[in-house]
Amino acid sequence: MILKNQVEWALHCCAVLAGLPPERYLATKTLAEFHGVPKEYLSKALQALSQAKIVTSTLGPSGGYRLARAAADITFLDIVEAVEGKRSTFACTEIRRNAPCHSDSGQPRPECEKGPCAVARIMWSADEAWRASLRAVRLSDLAEHLFKDPGPEALQRNLDWLLAQ
Amino acid sequence: MILKNQVEWALHCCAVLAGLPPERYLATKTLAEFHGVPKEYLSKALQALSQAKIVTSTLGPSGGYRLARAAADITFLDIVEAVEGKRSTFACTEIRRNAPCHSDSGQPRPECEKGPCAVARIMWSADEAWRASLRAVRLSDLAEHLFKDPGPEALQRNLDWLLAQ
Repeated sequence: MILKNQVEWALHCCAVLAGLPPERYLATKTLAEFHGVPKEYLSKALQALSQAKIVTSTLGPSGGYRLARAAADITFLDIVEAVEGKRSTFACTEIRRNAPCHSDSGQPRPECEKGPCAVARIMWSADEAWRASLRAVRLSDLAEHLFKDPGPEALQRNLDWLLAQ
Repeated sequence: MILKNQVEWALHCCAVLAGLPPERYLATKTLAEFHGVPKEYLSKALQALSQAKIVTSTLGPSGGYRLARAAADITFLDIVEAVEGKRSTFACTEIRRNAPCHSDSGQPRPECEKGPCAVARIMWSADEAWRASLRAVRLSDLAEHLFKDPGPEALQRNLDWLLAQ
């Protein structure tokens, strides 16, 4: 079980957008070149972010994407779920109902219908622990860290390059 | 991102094996019929459990699988990782190194190499929260719950059916 590459791309794009001056937009092409990823696939990730109202877009020569709200109001989970969806990583197919001893006529016995299966409850709870961990991190936390590693000089080089496109 | 169906099957099979009398084995065919799942695919899940030393197998007419150790010594995570592997759900492809401003000659600048990227650190930490949640549940906890719902009568019917195969 592995997340789509687009999750990584979407997180990095949002971090970059969080560092832009207000009202500046970045084109898909610029974001794709900056990250060295294919523009067509990145475009799908950006559209998913737009649909989730995490970014907003504008057309025209200086068009592209910017954050739709403050980085402090966007969580990691918002971005991950925009790309991967909100569906649990565990799908219960209720195989306990298939037990031959539970069914005389192919119908599930009533005693098998009492609430969700314990396997599903435990797996859903682990899925929620994963989401809670992602919900606890804001994009503003990420942006703080992401460009701290290369230092202020490299950060400025990044920004200069992005704004020159 | 969704777990394989075999994870659900493996968890249910282990719960059933946890309820067997000592030294009893169950054939793949019996486990497949009991759960109403395809024998060929279930077989792969059981082999993965065997490779992870969660179950042990024997050949012959009364052969099949049983738990390799006490249900209290097997966690949910052991079973999930036997089927899905231990690899993190997030794969970092280090796209931060692709930034044009980080590289004059196609080589990553040294400042980009300082430790793992913040995006990866946060995603790996969420993956670990998921695993920690699964590590906290023992197969013995599951077995207690799983067959409590249908009640003791249905539980006995299940066991009678399984042992009659």
